[in-house]
Amino acid sequence: MIRLFVPDPLAAGASIVSPPDQARYLTTVMRRAVGDEVALFNGRDGEWRAKLAEVSKRGCRLKVEAQTRPQTLGPDLDLVVALVKRPRLETIVEKAAELGARRVRLVVTRYTNADHAKIDRLRAIAVEAAEQTGRLDVPEILPVEKLNAMLDVWPSNQRLMFCDEAGDARPALEALKDAPDAPWAILIGPEGGFAPEERERLRAAPFVTPVSLGPRILRADTAALAALAIWQSVEGDCR
Amino acid sequence: MIRLFVPDPLAAGASIVSPPDQARYLTTVMRRAVGDEVALFNGRDGEWRAKLAEVSKRGCRLKVEAQTRPQTLGPDLDLVVALVKRPRLETIVEKAAELGARRVRLVVTRYTNADHAKIDRLRAIAVEAAEQTGRLDVPEILPVEKLNAMLDVWPSNQRLMFCDEAGDARPALEALKDAPDAPWAILIGPEGGFAPEERERLRAAPFVTPVSLGPRILRADTAALAALAIWQSVEGDCR
Repeated sequence: MIRLFVPDPLAAGASIVSPPDQARYLTTVMRRAVGDEVALFNGRDGEWRAKLAEVSKRGCRLKVEAQTRPQTLGPDLDLVVALVKRPRLETIVEKAAELGARRVRLVVTRYTNADHAKIDRLRAIAVEAAEQTGRLDVPEILPVEKLNAMLDVWPSNQRLMFCDEAGDARPALEALKDAPDAPWAILIGPEGGFAPEERERLRAAPFVTPVSLGPRILRADTAALAALAIWQSVEGDCR
Repeated sequence: MIRLFVPDPLAAGASIVSPPDQARYLTTVMRRAVGDEVALFNGRDGEWRAKLAEVSKRGCRLKVEAQTRPQTLGPDLDLVVALVKRPRLETIVEKAAELGARRVRLVVTRYTNADHAKIDRLRAIAVEAAEQTGRLDVPEILPVEKLNAMLDVWPSNQRLMFCDEAGDARPALEALKDAPDAPWAILIGPEGGFAPEERERLRAAPFVTPVSLGPRILRADTAALAALAIWQSVEGDCR
């Protein structure tokens, strides 16, 4: 069953007009025709069965029938990731959606080479990954921030898993076992790592849990994915 | 420091001739010149410091100086992965190298759409990832096999972590905690999952530990990476 994210409210009898891209995907790529069923979700109203009611050159219309799953949300987990080159950043967003991060926050650090990202493109990737992975929400992609500014206003009740490649941090699994149930975030640095003063600030912050991801040097996308998988196994919904 | 894999024996005073690709990378891409240092490894003799001794149009020559790290090997871990489309298969090989798999075995299953892979290209990706990740060996990429034939001769002392998306398997972390120290393999299916008879055979085999990777549907590359990260945290060298 094809799953599609739509921004519209979902309720029995509602009529949804698909934008051109989605209509093309449904009819031309997936060869669906009038009468075929799809699943719809919008991040608020759960998952609904809908029927393709009308196909024209300008788009298509979907008729919402019945709710198939109530709305649920995964764990309260942010992925905070320093800007890296586009292909790896796109991989990170795709994998964050598959591995159940609720938000992706993009940060500029001292050794980051970039200072902007195509947020719309990253949002589209998050939507597609959410459709395929079966979740009922789409991870939010937040605008680029500066790491220091973000840390200045960090909420005291949110824990930050700091993937510290330079150091003597405990292995992630062990470090997380003693950690409290709380909203969490995972911080992944740029390819060049963190500057010494950034590392010091992070290691000294009371909300930070420094962790090691093992003896090998990991690219940013690998580190993000490994950290998400381990966190979900210890603190999240893969327990 | 640039790290390069070479097939040659490494010993103090040895002279290594770089093939054209490697020479071009060193001199044109990384702008190294005569007298600059690089690190060399061959999977057998540890890591060695070498100096760029000669650069010509045909290639370059490296002079091996002293061993900087003795040879070590990561855990005895195979990644067994069903053939998937080329970009995702290449990602899987890159990540298997970064996350410390010792071998990658490619399999054809009932629902696999492909029956061959460009092994040479995958080997080149494994070499490059091993160079960057700091390991002292390169994961072996084995030729394509059939899943059933592989299971027919499966060694009785090797455990197989079967990532079973269809079922009621225990979460990976929990299932691995009770599992024995042994040589291990991780099995990742194709995008369409395993056929019912494949699943039955796997679930019934005494060497199999079925695991769940959580409530979301994961693409093959995400599943491979998540499984490797969790395995290394519980059984491997990220403990």
